[in-house]
Amino acid sequence: MLTQSGIASRQQQATELFEKAGVFITEAECASIEIADFGLDDFEVTGLGILVYVNTDRCCAKELVMWPGQTCPEHVHPPVGDDPGKEETFRCRWGTVFLYVPGEATEHPTCKPPGNRDKYTLQHEITLKQGDQYTIAPNTLHWFQAGEQGAVVSEFSTRSTDENDFFTDKTIRRMPS
Amino acid sequence: MLTQSGIASRQQQATELFEKAGVFITEAECASIEIADFGLDDFEVTGLGILVYVNTDRCCAKELVMWPGQTCPEHVHPPVGDDPGKEETFRCRWGTVFLYVPGEATEHPTCKPPGNRDKYTLQHEITLKQGDQYTIAPNTLHWFQAGEQGAVVSEFSTRSTDENDFFTDKTIRRMPS
Repeated sequence: MLTQSGIASRQQQATELFEKAGVFITEAECASIEIADFGLDDFEVTGLGILVYVNTDRCCAKELVMWPGQTCPEHVHPPVGDDPGKEETFRCRWGTVFLYVPGEATEHPTCKPPGNRDKYTLQHEITLKQGDQYTIAPNTLHWFQAGEQGAVVSEFSTRSTDENDFFTDKTIRRMPS
Repeated sequence: MLTQSGIASRQQQATELFEKAGVFITEAECASIEIADFGLDDFEVTGLGILVYVNTDRCCAKELVMWPGQTCPEHVHPPVGDDPGKEETFRCRWGTVFLYVPGEATEHPTCKPPGNRDKYTLQHEITLKQGDQYTIAPNTLHWFQAGEQGAVVSEFSTRSTDENDFFTDKTIRRMPS
């Protein structure tokens, strides 16, 4: 389990990665960075830092920060009522991130999913280097892993409602701190 | 009128301001920056540079760049059909921007609107320095002016449809290039 001081230390590291990426955040924002380990208690392997700039009923913007080789596990934002599901665009601000989406399996994918492979089904790789971006349609399964430097990724999306996400790994608990 | 070479020169200057702000953009994106003068042919006074990252039916993200003292004129994003109007959040990435919104007139506002004052009705000032942000509700009149360094501002919003905007200055023609 991440302790309070462990979280503060990760928030500080996240802020240093933001600085490398040229992303200025305030001290209050540093203290509000969510250090998400998806309940797996193995943050450096599976997790990411999340700074929410804005999340209204209609749209959302976040800055994501990933440590070297860290993975955000496979999940989908499904339709909820009249809403077709969250649509999101990832823009790589710094470092490299490898995104896996539905499609033909890439012959030699760069990343290995962490842990048990049956919790990761997608092998079609999209590489996002600095200045690259990709839009994920609603209700589309995806996962991503940072390259060896780590990564800072801006996310532009419709409203974010973590509680509606479905993870391929059913042991995951997405409980925003 | 801005010539093709004038536009290219402004796009280059915009890219240099993005660099100062720590915002990396690709060469193709540099060439796609809209140099908007609102048909007033006085770009350094009234205008801004706009890089659209994404604009789908549901959400939009842009990077705005403003030259020192430059003004984006007073306008509103009105409801259209079932849509309540564009909602937008401005986040100052670099420099300073002074935003004017409905509310009590600020006693000593920092900025003077350019030209004829009757084309600017709002005097309630919000100062956005690096790391500050403000969300403008739909159907809310606003205008903004950059400080003496200029400014780089991220805009996170619902779908952007310039053709629906209403400007207080009826001589303005918002024709995206």
